Amino acid sequence: SRSIDLAVIPGDGIGQEVVAQGLKVLSAVLPEDVKLETKEYDFGAKRYHATGETLTDADLDALKQHDAILLGAIGDPSVPSGVLERGFLLKLRFAFDHHVNLRPSKLLPGVATPLAGQPEIDFIVVREGTEGPYTGNGGTIRKGTPHEVATEVSVNTAFGVERVVRDAFARAQARPRKKLALIHKNNVLAFAGHLWTNIFNKVAEEYPDVTTEYMHVDAATIYLVTQPERFDVIVTDNLFGDIITDLAAAVSGGIGVAASGNINPSREFPSMFEPVHGSAPDIAGQGKADPSATVLSVALLLRHLGYEAEAARIEEAVSTDLAERVGKPARSTDEIGDALAVRVAG
Amino acid sequence: SRSIDLAVIPGDGIGQEVVAQGLKVLSAVLPEDVKLETKEYDFGAKRYHATGETLTDADLDALKQHDAILLGAIGDPSVPSGVLERGFLLKLRFAFDHHVNLRPSKLLPGVATPLAGQPEIDFIVVREGTEGPYTGNGGTIRKGTPHEVATEVSVNTAFGVERVVRDAFARAQARPRKKLALIHKNNVLAFAGHLWTNIFNKVAEEYPDVTTEYMHVDAATIYLVTQPERFDVIVTDNLFGDIITDLAAAVSGGIGVAASGNINPSREFPSMFEPVHGSAPDIAGQGKADPSATVLSVALLLRHLGYEAEAARIEEAVSTDLAERVGKPARSTDEIGDALAVRVAG
Ligand SMILES: CC(C)[C@H](C(=O)O)[C@@H](O)C(=O)O
Ligand SMILES: CC(C)[C@H](C(=O)O)[C@@H](O)C(=O)O
Repeated sequence: SRSIDLAVIPGDGIGQEVVAQGLKVLSAVLPEDVKLETKEYDFGAKRYHATGETLTDADLDALKQHDAILLGAIGDPSVPSGVLERGFLLKLRFAFDHHVNLRPSKLLPGVATPLAGQPEIDFIVVREGTEGPYTGNGGTIRKGTPHEVATEVSVNTAFGVERVVRDAFARAQARPRKKLALIHKNNVLAFAGHLWTNIFNKVAEEYPDVTTEYMHVDAATIYLVTQPERFDVIVTDNLFGDIITDLAAAVSGGIGVAASGNINPSREFPSMFEPVHGSAPDIAGQGKADPSATVLSVALLLRHLGYEAEAARIEEAVSTDLAERVGKPARSTDEIGDALAVRVAG
Repeated sequence: SRSIDLAVIPGDGIGQEVVAQGLKVLSAVLPEDVKLETKEYDFGAKRYHATGETLTDADLDALKQHDAILLGAIGDPSVPSGVLERGFLLKLRFAFDHHVNLRPSKLLPGVATPLAGQPEIDFIVVREGTEGPYTGNGGTIRKGTPHEVATEVSVNTAFGVERVVRDAFARAQARPRKKLALIHKNNVLAFAGHLWTNIFNKVAEEYPDVTTEYMHVDAATIYLVTQPERFDVIVTDNLFGDIITDLAAAVSGGIGVAASGNINPSREFPSMFEPVHGSAPDIAGQGKADPSATVLSVALLLRHLGYEAEAARIEEAVSTDLAERVGKPARSTDEIGDALAVRVAG
């Protein structure tokens, strides 16, 4: 008999509320023969204030035992900027080698976009997750003086770039349009740019049926608002991916519906799935948060674990639910979760 | 009697056509007593192919003699990516210490935006121009092998950050809304982020009438498409500025109307003014390019040299011209330039 052993990290703010709905929908969608086990972890601001800890080695050992991780949101204004981001979120990505940060953008029927003319948007971004300017390399000298110098080092390796480029080509080949765009800034960042472009072009030779293009990151932001329909799969570096996936989420319905996976394709470590949005302390505890992004992250989680039919059922349910919202009064976080659970079970 | 001694660099592709209109409008707007002298320079792809040179020390010495520089566009597909960008554009910015890269975004009446609901957009970006990941620091080892490592080093100095932050505060204070946003990624890029945030907060104390906010660059891309009206002045690092000003141009009427100045406020070296768009080889020589961005760059140039009334007259003319285009057949580059020249002279 099959089983899923899930680590659950509700985290801060609306994280608690949306994760509850994610689990509700997950329980509802799974066939009877699949045993679901969950263990909750208390990472986030409260634990940090109580213990000073963000993520210890013992925590990592515990998390490592699970099949996958579902996370709500981490972050609170009471904690200095960067402490939880680097001490928890990035530490986990690096420790579990989450090198494929997968972020789909699909404008679903009935969903509002800030763009005029309701364009067709359906692409995925494969963002590198363990290199680039995110490595924490760099430093400061003469801190706080008029002669302070601070550096940030973007580290890019052939190993790290090639594995994520290969992942993106495979994903592009599996999609009907079979298009892949590399986004970088190779005319200015020539060292990293050469490495990315060179490996991209080399791997492209093995995928003659995939249509490729290269685009500078600045130009990409223009296309994302003027011609988002041109994108199918995008592969890019950690920082550029951070920036363009927020823009992509904004144009394709907002972060209320943007899901993401921090994936270790080798399955050496559990992958982690989370909504793109943050902990939104301003609306926390009020039942106002849209759990759709978390529920869609559960779909990515299921697909990663091999439950393709269940993943598709969740995506279908969210899509229908969003379409049926138009013109109706707003529902609570819990009500949306209930509706989705009923839908996926049916 | 007054005079303007201008270096003119038409450059590649549509650069030639749009610069001709910029000069036409400049001649028309200047009072009779201002003597305009121009000297044309042949930088760009043609010169590179003929001589292998992009910008020599002798070139810099010659350019240095002028009061300001007007540039059309540099870049051609026949030149490998990066050669002219780094060999000419960035070299000039660094040699002449163009640390204030000024990019206004204003959605003018009648101008199409990809955003729904025609929001009110009127902000300026002060992008740092001589530091960050643009310094060319970094390197590659084991190039072309499976063990290649490529680094890019973002260099940030208190000196470099403070001068551009001060420039932005002064500009914010001079505007009616008096708002300034710092855009960075200080939760991840903690070394540079701390330097920027610290200096920003320190200088803010001297400007109690300026309302400040901090925003991560990823979140900023969301606000630029969902609430662009919230921005007044933005100050940011070289790379983030590159990315968000293209997005800003896209939402506020497109790169056909986006002007920019590479400014050395100390006037130790001439400042350089150019449209944000590139050389657009696909439409070059066909009279299809919109010269408005170049003409608006001429306005920035005039303002920099102290001709505020003339700068305002150009901006007014472009605004009226754009509003009157609605529903009319497209005009050629030359026709638009003629119309603007008549308008500013009137
Ligand atoms: C919170 C932060 C560290 C994170 C990132 O920059 O990767 C977030 O913006 C994201 O995109 O997941
Ligand atoms: C052409 C390139 C070097 C340049 C930059 O990245 O600064 C351009 O994109 C710009 O914004 O002026």
